[in-house]
Amino acid sequence: MSLPDPSDAPVPATAIARPGPPALMARLRKAKHRVVVLGGGFAGVYTARHLSELLGSRTDVHVELLSEENYFVFQPLLPEVAAGGVSPTHVVNPVREMVPRVQFRWSKVQRIDIAAKVVYATQGEGKELVAVPYDHLVFALGKVSNFSSMPGVQEHALAMKDLSDAFKLRNHVYRCLELADVEDAPAEKAALLTFVVAGGGFSGVETIGELSEMLHKVKKNFKNIEARELRLVLVHSRDTLLPEMPAALGKAAMEILQQRGVEIIVNARTKAASRYAVYLSTGARLETRTFICTVGNAPNPICKDALATGAFVEGKSGGRGIGVFQTDLHLQCTGQTHYWAVGDCAGVPMPGKPDEICPATAQFAIRQGKVAAENILAAIDNRPERRREFSFKGLGTLASLGNRSAVADMMGVQLKGFVAWFAWRTIYLSKLPGMIRRLRVTVDWTLDLFFPRDITQLQPDESPQLRVEHYEPGEVIIARDEIGRELFVIQQGEVEVKEPDGTLVATLKDGEVFGEKALLTDAPRTAHVVAKTPVDVLVMTRAGFKALVGQLQPLDDYFTGLMKQRYPQLVPDDTRVTALVGTAKS
Amino acid sequence: MSLPDPSDAPVPATAIARPGPPALMARLRKAKHRVVVLGGGFAGVYTARHLSELLGSRTDVHVELLSEENYFVFQPLLPEVAAGGVSPTHVVNPVREMVPRVQFRWSKVQRIDIAAKVVYATQGEGKELVAVPYDHLVFALGKVSNFSSMPGVQEHALAMKDLSDAFKLRNHVYRCLELADVEDAPAEKAALLTFVVAGGGFSGVETIGELSEMLHKVKKNFKNIEARELRLVLVHSRDTLLPEMPAALGKAAMEILQQRGVEIIVNARTKAASRYAVYLSTGARLETRTFICTVGNAPNPICKDALATGAFVEGKSGGRGIGVFQTDLHLQCTGQTHYWAVGDCAGVPMPGKPDEICPATAQFAIRQGKVAAENILAAIDNRPERRREFSFKGLGTLASLGNRSAVADMMGVQLKGFVAWFAWRTIYLSKLPGMIRRLRVTVDWTLDLFFPRDITQLQPDESPQLRVEHYEPGEVIIARDEIGRELFVIQQGEVEVKEPDGTLVATLKDGEVFGEKALLTDAPRTAHVVAKTPVDVLVMTRAGFKALVGQLQPLDDYFTGLMKQRYPQLVPDDTRVTALVGTAKS
Repeated sequence: MSLPDPSDAPVPATAIARPGPPALMARLRKAKHRVVVLGGGFAGVYTARHLSELLGSRTDVHVELLSEENYFVFQPLLPEVAAGGVSPTHVVNPVREMVPRVQFRWSKVQRIDIAAKVVYATQGEGKELVAVPYDHLVFALGKVSNFSSMPGVQEHALAMKDLSDAFKLRNHVYRCLELADVEDAPAEKAALLTFVVAGGGFSGVETIGELSEMLHKVKKNFKNIEARELRLVLVHSRDTLLPEMPAALGKAAMEILQQRGVEIIVNARTKAASRYAVYLSTGARLETRTFICTVGNAPNPICKDALATGAFVEGKSGGRGIGVFQTDLHLQCTGQTHYWAVGDCAGVPMPGKPDEICPATAQFAIRQGKVAAENILAAIDNRPERRREFSFKGLGTLASLGNRSAVADMMGVQLKGFVAWFAWRTIYLSKLPGMIRRLRVTVDWTLDLFFPRDITQLQPDESPQLRVEHYEPGEVIIARDEIGRELFVIQQGEVEVKEPDGTLVATLKDGEVFGEKALLTDAPRTAHVVAKTPVDVLVMTRAGFKALVGQLQPLDDYFTGLMKQRYPQLVPDDTRVTALVGTAKS
Repeated sequence: MSLPDPSDAPVPATAIARPGPPALMARLRKAKHRVVVLGGGFAGVYTARHLSELLGSRTDVHVELLSEENYFVFQPLLPEVAAGGVSPTHVVNPVREMVPRVQFRWSKVQRIDIAAKVVYATQGEGKELVAVPYDHLVFALGKVSNFSSMPGVQEHALAMKDLSDAFKLRNHVYRCLELADVEDAPAEKAALLTFVVAGGGFSGVETIGELSEMLHKVKKNFKNIEARELRLVLVHSRDTLLPEMPAALGKAAMEILQQRGVEIIVNARTKAASRYAVYLSTGARLETRTFICTVGNAPNPICKDALATGAFVEGKSGGRGIGVFQTDLHLQCTGQTHYWAVGDCAGVPMPGKPDEICPATAQFAIRQGKVAAENILAAIDNRPERRREFSFKGLGTLASLGNRSAVADMMGVQLKGFVAWFAWRTIYLSKLPGMIRRLRVTVDWTLDLFFPRDITQLQPDESPQLRVEHYEPGEVIIARDEIGRELFVIQQGEVEVKEPDGTLVATLKDGEVFGEKALLTDAPRTAHVVAKTPVDVLVMTRAGFKALVGQLQPLDDYFTGLMKQRYPQLVPDDTRVTALVGTAKS
């Protein structure tokens, strides 16, 4: 699904912002200082939490946290959720429970009016605009995924950024196994059993490791699938995995994964993806139904907009792409007194190494949040002597490889294999916020040692009524004899309609429609349609198509005309297409 | 979302069915007898499981199970999942693990060719048709929901039938709490905090009980919500709850729920539902954002089709609606030698009471499956002396009311309150299939006694690009000053466009469009649109609209014309609507 999120539409400048509820308004009137934190990840939550702890029972400072999710995710465990080792609900923490004394607002920031010191956000279905005034503003918005430089990746790749990604991947993999188990065509079966991950950083390495462990654990449930048929591929743009760790550990990780049968393609980038395959910069084409893309970080659009005002200084990127706020060691945005930045959207100088910036990890985000909270309070109370500099230098790095194996670099000591894995579990467990989660994850892990993985496919088929798909030249969009369930409109590019013997019937381009016949006549597809150039198509399901054509007269006219012209024998004079298809309710 | 499932379209009669994978084909060639079980609920799974156990290592009988889900749900615990007391993955069991020696096929049955003895099913995205031949066929397809007699219920009610329903309800409730916590309008806040359940049977009573427990447990996390603002309503068509249980227990359940503040409306039916409210047969209107409908069971369409062939005898309904197969006590369809029916789609005579049929519960389904398996094998082996009659008379009935309270009728002993609740937990735990689930649910329950509920809202906003909404007369479809994000096409009914002072601007009907201006100009809504009659509207999001209008010339023409006519000052000559809206990618 690549159409933008329905709530993503820009907010009209003239929209009227609504006030808050009476109880909140009463508290706001009492407060002299309003601190607003944008973002509910580690950085934002720990800033708000520490600030509210420092405030104790003071009512003169109102703290408000805005986030699009009412929970925050312990990201290092996402690959384990995807692989079924840990329950999805056990790696999330409700923000409200982490910040009990802070006003939480489940909303999407739309724009910041820096002159008026007001944040505008939408709530609910995106129809209500609220105005949140502030004195101090903390940016903790993190990064977003942006795949726009790689055609088709937005449309066809799975990400590994939040809980719904992990949940989606888990269900998608079981779906592929179910289909492979009853698939007769060898090429399709091979594609269903090929799993490609792009990115050799923490997220990519941990994902392929966990995936490999899971696939080998569950394959016994599928009678018609053999171990040698499973193919796992990791694509990485450099020559050593895990660039954030010492090179020796990157090499060790590579060897451990390769011994387990994972193919690793180094010095290669993803060029494009389609419904059928991943295309690499090396010219290679990997036929797969499962592509997980862990590369493509971009700044949050709100940060980009704020930086564009010129009020802020853009920081060093440290390999994180552009779009971070430069801060000093007090976490204050350079040149500003009332703006702060923490976590992945901040370019915080590395203590002791002024030419570097802090890595984008939870360790740093949590500690930045705490220091920012102290300094904000010092600013509010006008006690500059209480300000504190950020001085954390990191505890080390760990990457799990699945199958009770990991690599770790802790205080200069390098570990690999089972010892590293054991350290990894212990440390992550101690970092997981909230006693209840820790208990639940411990139980999950213990059960996982003794019991089979849960192979349930929990999500219904994902077939939105309207979506965009991408195809590369030569790929088949419609195959003859398939059951026709969708109509295609070309957004850009060209396709060729062919007879099964290869004879060219027609070439179609932008704005033209194909696939309409099988929808209207309930007959299987009668021709092949193949991409001539890279092509984006808008796909409409039969139900969506019927609803639209049945209600909108101009569409009915258009499709009636099109059908009369293309298949005169199917549409007698004076017959409308609506008479052939009925409406969505039929 | 009320458009039909994309994979629901009928399969063309001329579609070509594909063979199975080579390994499966090889096993099929060896088998002399093919038993196909349709449906993966308790009845189907236990039939297949018991049959494969009886067969042991015999290879002359091939057993195949077809189901739309690769797991089956322990339904009595669904309300607890919805209420967050139990993790979603802990109440499901993978079908493959329950029937390790059976070929499982994750597919949707499309039609049965009784003359040729072949089941046609679709796999994957519904584009592949497979043919599954059988000698013996077992119907275990259960029932489906059908809300068609109640306008708007399909569009706006949540069901409580499978795991995704429970998961959806859980997320929806947290969404309402998040919004209520920051809502300024008292009427909207009240609607967000009103929860209506239709149906006073097991499912409805347990759902309202669990919901009530959950809401009172989690409300402390929401600063601006008070206990007295929560409203829970149960609507029931008779005068006593739980008609399946002795009347005294129905009354006891009612008292326990009422003491806890649940409103119970008896002798009332749901007449209609809209985005805003539930309408009852008594004339009452309940303003709510959460409506859970546990009534409206209908036969599975495949059973209906099979019954319509005249080959089968339709059984008694026993309050389950029509559309069940009449069977004898051997579970054989009346008048048939190779067709069997078990579970909710079967009208099995109640042992010892030939005028009644067995109730539609898991207790009966499991035992029917076992007896059917024995009798199928007796038929295959031509050993009629081994046939066995179904003789189970039931163990009793239990209904949980949340808050450590329940009512139970066991072997004639009636229990209520904590004792019944304790019995309920113990019995359900012992019935839950699979040791691992039992352990996990025990852990969940134990943790739930000591720790707060998990209030994370895990699902993204549900706003499909294309959907149908229903409104009753007088309801506001578009409110002035809202941010306009959607376009509406009237499917049936009439709406009035009004100035805020009530002046009528226009009346629109079937096929007409409204809401287009705010989409095209990024301005807030400028008028009220109110339903004049009951009205169904097709709702298209801004992104969906932009994609369609940007690509389809006739739609561009139509909307350009419409805008020029309605707002001539906004569309200069020679300007196309596409120029104003751009495309979905912009």
